[in-house]
Amino acid sequence: MDAAEPTGIALLGATGSIGASSLDVIARHMDRYRVVALSAHRDVAAMERLCRRFRPALVAMADPHAAAALRRQISDLSDTAVAEGAAGQTAVATHAEAQTVIAGIVGAAGLAPCLAAVEAGRRVLIANKEALVVAGSLIMNAARRSGAVLLPIDSEHNGLFQCLPARPGQPLSLAGVERLVLTASGGPFRDRDPATLSEVTVAEACAHPNWSMGRKISVDSATMMNKGLEVIEACRFFGLPADQVEVVVHPQSYVHALVQYRDGSTLAQMGNPDMRTPIANALAWPERVAAGVAPLDLVGAGRLDFAAPDDQRFPCLALARAALKAGRGATAALNGANEVAVAEFLRGGLRYDRIAGVIEETLAARPAEPDDTLEALIGHEQWARRQTTESLQRGRHR
Amino acid sequence: MDAAEPTGIALLGATGSIGASSLDVIARHMDRYRVVALSAHRDVAAMERLCRRFRPALVAMADPHAAAALRRQISDLSDTAVAEGAAGQTAVATHAEAQTVIAGIVGAAGLAPCLAAVEAGRRVLIANKEALVVAGSLIMNAARRSGAVLLPIDSEHNGLFQCLPARPGQPLSLAGVERLVLTASGGPFRDRDPATLSEVTVAEACAHPNWSMGRKISVDSATMMNKGLEVIEACRFFGLPADQVEVVVHPQSYVHALVQYRDGSTLAQMGNPDMRTPIANALAWPERVAAGVAPLDLVGAGRLDFAAPDDQRFPCLALARAALKAGRGATAALNGANEVAVAEFLRGGLRYDRIAGVIEETLAARPAEPDDTLEALIGHEQWARRQTTESLQRGRHR
Repeated sequence: MDAAEPTGIALLGATGSIGASSLDVIARHMDRYRVVALSAHRDVAAMERLCRRFRPALVAMADPHAAAALRRQISDLSDTAVAEGAAGQTAVATHAEAQTVIAGIVGAAGLAPCLAAVEAGRRVLIANKEALVVAGSLIMNAARRSGAVLLPIDSEHNGLFQCLPARPGQPLSLAGVERLVLTASGGPFRDRDPATLSEVTVAEACAHPNWSMGRKISVDSATMMNKGLEVIEACRFFGLPADQVEVVVHPQSYVHALVQYRDGSTLAQMGNPDMRTPIANALAWPERVAAGVAPLDLVGAGRLDFAAPDDQRFPCLALARAALKAGRGATAALNGANEVAVAEFLRGGLRYDRIAGVIEETLAARPAEPDDTLEALIGHEQWARRQTTESLQRGRHR
Repeated sequence: MDAAEPTGIALLGATGSIGASSLDVIARHMDRYRVVALSAHRDVAAMERLCRRFRPALVAMADPHAAAALRRQISDLSDTAVAEGAAGQTAVATHAEAQTVIAGIVGAAGLAPCLAAVEAGRRVLIANKEALVVAGSLIMNAARRSGAVLLPIDSEHNGLFQCLPARPGQPLSLAGVERLVLTASGGPFRDRDPATLSEVTVAEACAHPNWSMGRKISVDSATMMNKGLEVIEACRFFGLPADQVEVVVHPQSYVHALVQYRDGSTLAQMGNPDMRTPIANALAWPERVAAGVAPLDLVGAGRLDFAAPDDQRFPCLALARAALKAGRGATAALNGANEVAVAEFLRGGLRYDRIAGVIEETLAARPAEPDDTLEALIGHEQWARRQTTESLQRGRHR
């Protein structure tokens, strides 16, 4: 790529939170980056604003009605084509002018375009948890075949990436890595009496101390299932077994991840909690660009605390490790069962302290291991959703 | 270098503290490293043990009487030659079979052999503070000419090295580095009432909370002159101006150094305080080998604290920064004046709280800037020693 030529960027999930942070970073460096393709679900007004600002060659709305509405709204922008549906998302993910694809769509819907970008050999910035939890070996194998460079942009995995020798795809055992450590804030119930977890309200579970997040992710943070899923992602992404990835509770959330080396060194990545830092890091890697994020003020922070996670208080962490050992189908099912159980808790139909038990029951009922294809893995996750929904409808967890 | 062929190591200062740590690491990896040359000052018994254990091709004793005694002691070791004096040290530093030289001699005596190793284009592991404080630009320029790879092995600078992109010699501004941060324990007087610093005893000044060190270095740690010298070393080694190198007080001494990047990331290197970690890191770089050092137990540590250094309590830090700005002669003089002032304090002839003032007075009296040659720089430092000695003899600081 010519140094004078800006890198073409395709952004999946442009109107979401990852999308907003990505475009904030990109807008600071229009000399280096050019937005060539954007996708969104159905927020026409937001996408119209992005089209007028960044003038992409292609935009896709997953919802065909939204696509039709957007076509009318931007009919004056003759250089911007509007695609729709799943095919539209994939067209964005594999746009010929995009060297880098930011996979910012959360959930199963983001899986197919993410995989398409990987198969097309792009540099893919992965924020989509399902890519690794549901389809980890599929994605990693596709990257090995296509030569795609995968870079993680959630805070913890990007933190690990920064603390590792900068060679994506190289086995870490050769680099002297002994252990990866992910930090967890401990969420709102870090110090709560476990005996009172049966009384946790939705409002309590959604009140995360450090990050402002959606309700689903806030509950995952409270149960530490988010950290369990991150352990799975880390093992899949970095190619390490479960016992080389640890979780440490760090209430201040300044240290995102650590790597222990065999010479006794531990490297840590820290920063203010702001998604623009990992996004800027992955966008510019191996260079660095400004992200609009102030450096961590260690003196102002004053103190960093660390503690072991309490397995009894956070049973979802052990569930995730067990699923990781059981294989790809189990982690897909874990993710599906967790989504249904958390939704039911948020709806008021399930006690907080029974979320883990519901997931465990689904995992125990799993059918045969799925094939390593997108269809089979998504099918397995969908089975887990149905199974969990039925289990909840039978009402045995009330 | 053939992967199957062990790396030849020359070790300057084999019977000292850096020497012991280095040989401990090397002995763990005799398949990778082979001791080909050792030097020491005059400890014949210790050197005899090392000769029998490691069978070097050459050893040098700085003291000719010690060399003669050693020759008698190891007359049965027909493969080990014994050299003497400054020429002997240089022969060890430039031994033809040594690809890596560990410069572990403290003080001005270590300068010439260190420079010789750099000029010979070896990989040089630098523990000798004077190399950069007294002769920084000379050493760095020599490395650029010869292609020598310089790697720092004191904890803080090796920590910085580990947090930086692994390209020795590359300008850091290109790598997105905004600031280097060295941690300081704060020493024994971190919380002491500054009004009582006039009453500090030698025993109090030598009681370092975290590291077991010699008396001179312990006093430097108490005054934070050691950190001032490390700021100078960091600026010279990494090619950054003084305002991009900061000091943060961190009483637990687990975090050795941090690097702030322009994307908002801060990388930190941590570990148990043990010299074998930085030595193993530099020996094996870019690989990693075991050092016999347990990984940092963050949960056991529980908490890491950070605070700004108190300029009033630690005036030597500002003195070092001022010397760095004034240039190479000033840092050489700073080092010489400090050694004399600290020796006088240890002898009972100077109050603790007057150390900084004595150094400042010497710096203010400096003659013209010395040429950038080893002779001129050492001469300038010796002038500072004489000047400080005379100033102390005049007794105005009692």
